[in-house]
Amino acid sequence: MGSGFIGVEMADELACNGKEVTIISGSKYILQNSFDKELAKKAEEILLGHGVTLKQGEYAKTIIQKDGVATGIELNDGSIINGEVLILATGYQPNTALAKKAGLKLARYGGIWVDEYMRTKNKDIFAIGDCSGRRDFITREPSKVMLASTSASEARVAGTSLYKIKYMKGFNGTIAIFSTMVGDRAFASAGITESEAKRQNIEYVSATFEGMNRHPATIPDATKQSVKLIAMRHSGRIIGGQVIGDKEAGEMINIIGLAIESELTIYSIISLQVATQPLLTSAPTTYPIVKAAEMIAKEVS
Amino acid sequence: MGSGFIGVEMADELACNGKEVTIISGSKYILQNSFDKELAKKAEEILLGHGVTLKQGEYAKTIIQKDGVATGIELNDGSIINGEVLILATGYQPNTALAKKAGLKLARYGGIWVDEYMRTKNKDIFAIGDCSGRRDFITREPSKVMLASTSASEARVAGTSLYKIKYMKGFNGTIAIFSTMVGDRAFASAGITESEAKRQNIEYVSATFEGMNRHPATIPDATKQSVKLIAMRHSGRIIGGQVIGDKEAGEMINIIGLAIESELTIYSIISLQVATQPLLTSAPTTYPIVKAAEMIAKEVS
Repeated sequence: MGSGFIGVEMADELACNGKEVTIISGSKYILQNSFDKELAKKAEEILLGHGVTLKQGEYAKTIIQKDGVATGIELNDGSIINGEVLILATGYQPNTALAKKAGLKLARYGGIWVDEYMRTKNKDIFAIGDCSGRRDFITREPSKVMLASTSASEARVAGTSLYKIKYMKGFNGTIAIFSTMVGDRAFASAGITESEAKRQNIEYVSATFEGMNRHPATIPDATKQSVKLIAMRHSGRIIGGQVIGDKEAGEMINIIGLAIESELTIYSIISLQVATQPLLTSAPTTYPIVKAAEMIAKEVS
Repeated sequence: MGSGFIGVEMADELACNGKEVTIISGSKYILQNSFDKELAKKAEEILLGHGVTLKQGEYAKTIIQKDGVATGIELNDGSIINGEVLILATGYQPNTALAKKAGLKLARYGGIWVDEYMRTKNKDIFAIGDCSGRRDFITREPSKVMLASTSASEARVAGTSLYKIKYMKGFNGTIAIFSTMVGDRAFASAGITESEAKRQNIEYVSATFEGMNRHPATIPDATKQSVKLIAMRHSGRIIGGQVIGDKEAGEMINIIGLAIESELTIYSIISLQVATQPLLTSAPTTYPIVKAAEMIAKEVS
């Protein structure tokens, strides 16, 4: 149950180890919070190729049990899916009982309210990690993102602010940056998706560039590489990115993440100097993050 | 002849194909313009392991010829190295005869002088690529860097400035960002090295973090990953970085390059949100670019 990256990673691992797996999800496509449909579909194809069954768009109504053991799920549409093991990958809620007892303020979704330096309403008490109340870097909405890397970043901010606030400006909201493997392809995302930008009524432009991760493309381990960028229509400020590729995609998303967090625009990316090497990257003339930025610039010009 | 990355890549390829290769260089260690000694030594170890001979610290005095064919080199110290093929990898000089004839101003090292928009002194004539006169992004000194990726970036600036200058601020100097493979290790560099910072009398601090590129380190394809950062002591501004690792190093250097070009400091890197994933990156708690920035912050605090 659940088609976020935990559900997807589990399903793929189990299917590749010979298990019969069905992903049940209320979403219309997998990885919905991090990827737009056309990219998520590529991950779905890999899962389907590994024999995973996708049951999407229907929420679970009841967990069917026999002698206290789950034996199946009844969906909203009345259909029943039987199985031997049920894995819940539907997200978590912070356990903030202690914080509540201490009289600390809680944020929406029940996390402990913190300021940019990870201080709670009691400035001698800090909260970091999945128990802290998070806000999205771009939308400023409360965020349900729970990532180890976000927690590690919060920890660094808290650590350098414990005795004195050493560095401005602390932690200015989560940019939901993460990567995963589906089969032998890396899927990575940072910032907000196009569909989230729509929901938030943001005036955005997006573009996707498809290229190769080596040059020339005849190099033995060369594979396809896709980069989607989402930027504000008027300022050109980058607010989201998605990458599909070989393992280097895990670091390429950190380039986009740095651009988002540093409030850069597609215009700085257009003149960006990048290292390229036949065995390691795309060609200098088709570096995909730069090309996607160019496509957006053309669209808005 | 020459121990820049062209010389090193050629030597390694030929040695791995069974040829007896000697690299002759006036430098004390290979890749001197892009790497500090302790990192360059790791590349040298790989070359030595592949059977390459290194003859360093002595300049070539004469190319010995017989019937118009090179048969050997006499070095400054009088020693002679014989061989069947001599490969010159000693850099290039732009051919700017046409520019000179057109009355354009030339820069130091003979490149065509250009402004930040790649316009020559005649604003209707643009020059890009290795024939243009380059300046270093950090030191502001004339630069001999000749990289396809630099040229591609200059081309984008020229292209968007041909009819009207569309975007500020154009090309603000080369940051000498590049990557290469030596054996199965990627070596990547951006900005200036520590030894160049010394020569330029820059008050800098540097730090190197060594970690693993997967987490936990027991993951089958996990290998070591080293990141060296160089920053201004007072502002913390990042002016250089060097990465050794698996293929992802080719994209990690672009994170450091973006930080240099965007004039970021180690203090923004400390709170940076990065995507980490067991199969793709280091652990969130030991992301090497962040750890190196932390080490510098500790050193200057």
